[in-house]
Amino acid sequence: MQSFDLDKTDISKIKAALSGDDEQLKVILGEYHASEIAILFESLSKEDKQRIINLLDVEIASEVISEMHEESHPEELLLQLHPDKRTEIVEELDYDDATDIISQLEEHEQKEILADLSEDDASSIRNLLSYHEETAGGLMNTEFIRVNLNLTKKDAIEEIIRQSEEIEEFYTIFVVDDDNVFHGIVSLKDIIKAKGNVKITELVKAEVAWVYPDTDQEEVARLISQYNITSIPVLDKEMKLLGRVTFDDVIDVLEDENTEDILKISGVSEDEELSGNWLEAVKSRLPWLILNLGTAFLASSVVRHYDDTIKLITILPAYMTIIAGMGGNAATQALAVTVRRISLYDLTDSQAYRTVLKEFTVGLINGACTGAIVFIVALYFDSNPMLGLVIFLAMTGNLLIAGITGAGIPLALKRIGIDPAIASSIIITTFTDVFGFLLLLGLASHLLL
Amino acid sequence: MQSFDLDKTDISKIKAALSGDDEQLKVILGEYHASEIAILFESLSKEDKQRIINLLDVEIASEVISEMHEESHPEELLLQLHPDKRTEIVEELDYDDATDIISQLEEHEQKEILADLSEDDASSIRNLLSYHEETAGGLMNTEFIRVNLNLTKKDAIEEIIRQSEEIEEFYTIFVVDDDNVFHGIVSLKDIIKAKGNVKITELVKAEVAWVYPDTDQEEVARLISQYNITSIPVLDKEMKLLGRVTFDDVIDVLEDENTEDILKISGVSEDEELSGNWLEAVKSRLPWLILNLGTAFLASSVVRHYDDTIKLITILPAYMTIIAGMGGNAATQALAVTVRRISLYDLTDSQAYRTVLKEFTVGLINGACTGAIVFIVALYFDSNPMLGLVIFLAMTGNLLIAGITGAGIPLALKRIGIDPAIASSIIITTFTDVFGFLLLLGLASHLLL
Repeated sequence: MQSFDLDKTDISKIKAALSGDDEQLKVILGEYHASEIAILFESLSKEDKQRIINLLDVEIASEVISEMHEESHPEELLLQLHPDKRTEIVEELDYDDATDIISQLEEHEQKEILADLSEDDASSIRNLLSYHEETAGGLMNTEFIRVNLNLTKKDAIEEIIRQSEEIEEFYTIFVVDDDNVFHGIVSLKDIIKAKGNVKITELVKAEVAWVYPDTDQEEVARLISQYNITSIPVLDKEMKLLGRVTFDDVIDVLEDENTEDILKISGVSEDEELSGNWLEAVKSRLPWLILNLGTAFLASSVVRHYDDTIKLITILPAYMTIIAGMGGNAATQALAVTVRRISLYDLTDSQAYRTVLKEFTVGLINGACTGAIVFIVALYFDSNPMLGLVIFLAMTGNLLIAGITGAGIPLALKRIGIDPAIASSIIITTFTDVFGFLLLLGLASHLLL
Repeated sequence: MQSFDLDKTDISKIKAALSGDDEQLKVILGEYHASEIAILFESLSKEDKQRIINLLDVEIASEVISEMHEESHPEELLLQLHPDKRTEIVEELDYDDATDIISQLEEHEQKEILADLSEDDASSIRNLLSYHEETAGGLMNTEFIRVNLNLTKKDAIEEIIRQSEEIEEFYTIFVVDDDNVFHGIVSLKDIIKAKGNVKITELVKAEVAWVYPDTDQEEVARLISQYNITSIPVLDKEMKLLGRVTFDDVIDVLEDENTEDILKISGVSEDEELSGNWLEAVKSRLPWLILNLGTAFLASSVVRHYDDTIKLITILPAYMTIIAGMGGNAATQALAVTVRRISLYDLTDSQAYRTVLKEFTVGLINGACTGAIVFIVALYFDSNPMLGLVIFLAMTGNLLIAGITGAGIPLALKRIGIDPAIASSIIITTFTDVFGFLLLLGLASHLLL
C-alpha cells in the first residue's frame, strides 16, 4: 500500500463492487484492512453494510464491527443481522469490544443477544456491562495473559504459548498468586533472557501502576500516558486481577475527551453526537441558548438604563458593538488558554494568581492598542477627540476585564470543584458585554454630557 | 502506592526535603517514579531542579528530563548543568528524546552540546535534527530491534536478546534483508511458538502500515490509532528502515493537537505557550484582535447606516445586543460541532450538504424558540407587538444564518484546502453581527416606520 489514506476512489470502488456479484465484492473487500472497511462503512447504506458483514469471514467481520465509530452505531447493525450470524460475531469479539457495542442497546435488546451466547460469554459480558462506560471497568478486557508467581521459566513459556492461542495481542504478562492476587508484571523478553530455570517470582516487576474498576477513564488515560505503558491492570479492593485496559483504548478516550472539551467551551452539551440529527442538536444547544438569553437581558438592561445618553449621543450604538465584540473575543482567548492549562497542569495558588496577573497585563496592552486604533477611526469619522478618548478608555477597560474574567472564572470554578470548561465562552462574554456597556455608556455620560 | 495522583502533600514533601541534606533528599526522591518527579518539577525553582538532577543516578535523571513537558523547558535545565553531567545525561537518553530537547536550543548551543558527545551519538542526533519536529522523522527513534529475514529461530532469539541489552523497551521486532530493506514485522511470541528451527522469513507479517520521514505527525497518530499498533516503522524512498515511532509519542501528539484545536477555534495562535509570559500572549493574540477589529467596523457601519431608524426607535440598541450576542453563540455552537466532525471524519459532499441543511433546521427552530421568548419580553417591557414581531423575525433569521455560516464556512474552507479551524469563532461571529443588525434594523425600518 503506497498510501494508507482512504479517499473517493476507494468509496467508488466499493460502491461499484456492491452493484456486482458477491464473489467479486469479496475479492475487492479483501484488499482492505478491517479498520479501513469500518471507515468506508460511514459512506454506505444499512443494506450495504449488512451485506458486507454477512459476506466477510467472521474474524474480519467482527473486527470491522469492533472498529466502527460509536456514531456509526454498530449496535444497530448487529441487531439487523440474522441471530445466528449475530451470535457468531459476538462470540468472536473481545469481551470489552462486545460490551461497548451491546451497552448501547436497550435492556430487552441486550437480553435477547446475551440469551443466544454461551453461559461463559454471557456472564463475562454481563459482568462488564455492570460497570459505568467511562471507567476502567467499562474499558477493560477480562482476557489477558497471566502466569503464576511460582511457575518456572520453562512452564511459564509453555503456559504463555497456550494462553496466546485465545489471546493473540498481548504486550505485558500479568503475574498473580494462587488466589489471583496481582503481584506485578513480567515481559516475555525477560523470561526468555533469564538464565537457568528460575521462578517467575524472581523476574516479576512489582512497582507498577494499576487502577480500580471505578477509576475514571480520564485518570486511566493519564496514567497510561504518564508512565508510557502499553496496558494497565484493573484490580479489585483485595488486589485481585480483574482485567486490563490497553493503550489503544486510551487513544480513543483522548479523542473523545478532545471532542468534549471543544464542545464544552463552545456552549454545546458534551453528549451531542457530531453526526446527530437536528432534534438531538436542538435538545443539546437550546438550553444553553436560553441560559445565555437570560444573561443577554442583563446586558440589555444596562443599555436601557443609559437610554437618555444614547438619545443624546446617537453615534454610541455604532461603537457599542465594537466594544462588546472585542471584549468577547479577548475573553474567549484568555478562557481557551486558561482552561487548557488547567486541564494539563495542576496549578498552585501562586501560579493561578500569576495567570490572572498575566491576563490583566495582556488585556491592558491589547486593549490600549486596539483602543488606539478605534480612537483614530473615531477621530476620522466623527471628529470628536473627547468621544475618541471615551472609546479608548472603554476599550482598554473592557479588554482588561475580559482578561481577568476569562482567566479568573475558570480558575475560581476549579478551586471550588466545578469543571472549569463549563465557564464556556457563552457565560464569560456576557460579563464582557455588561462591563463593556457600563464602561462605554457610563464614561460617555460623564465625559460627553 | 494507593493513589498515583500527585498533590500538594507531595510538593510540600519535596520542598521540605530540599531544605535538608542531600542524603535525605535522595531517599525522598527514591519514592517517586521519574515521570512523577518531572511533574513535581513544574513547581520547583531552577536551582532546585538542577540540584535534584545532579543528585539522581544518571538513568533516573535522564528519564526525568525526557518526561518533562516542553513548556517546562528541559533544554534550559540541560544548559545549566556542568558539561560533564550534561554529556552523561544526553548519552543516556534515547536519540528521539535527546533530539526533541536539543532541537529547542539555539544553533550554537546545539553545537556545543553535540561537540561533547561520541561521534556516533552526535551524528545520530544531527541526523534526527534534520527532520521537521512535527513529522515522523522528528518523532522517530533510530534505535529498535531488527532481525534479518534469513536468521533461523534460534539465532534470531539470540540476536534479539543481544540487542535488548541496549534497547530495553520494544514491542515489535522489525524484519529487514541484507540491504536493510524493510520486509515486515514479527513478534517475539510468534518466534517462540514456531515449531522447528524455521527461518524468520516464514514468520514475518508483511502487510503492515508504515510512514515516510516527512509524514505529518497527525497522520502518524491517525495510523497508529486506526490500526491499534504499538509502533510504526519509518522508511525511506527505497523502503529502507530508518526508525520507528511509538504509541507513547502518539499520545503526546494527540494532547498537543487537542491544545491546538481549542486555541485555534478561540482565535489564539496555536503556538502560544499556555504557561508563556504576557509578551508572548500579546504577540499571539493581538493580530487576531486587530483582524477582528476590521470586521467589527463592518458590523458597526451597518449600524451607522440605520442611524435615522435608531434615532426614531431608541429602544432598538437594547435589542441589538441580544440579537447579535445570541447569533454569535449559536454560530459558535454550529462551528464547534462541524469543525470537530470534519477533523474526525472524511465527509462526502452529500454529507456536507446535509450538515448545512441540519444546521439550517436547528437555527430555524432555536431561533424561533428564543425569538418567541424575546417577543414576550418585548411585549412586557415595551408593549409594542409590532416591535415584538420585528425582533422575533430578526432572531429567527439571525440564528438561521448563524447555523448556515457556522457549518458552511468551515466546510467550504476544507473543500478548498484551508484548515477549517482557522474559521475561528472570531470571524464567524462577525458574520452574525452584520446580518443580525441588517435584519433587526432593516426590518424595523420597514415595519415600524
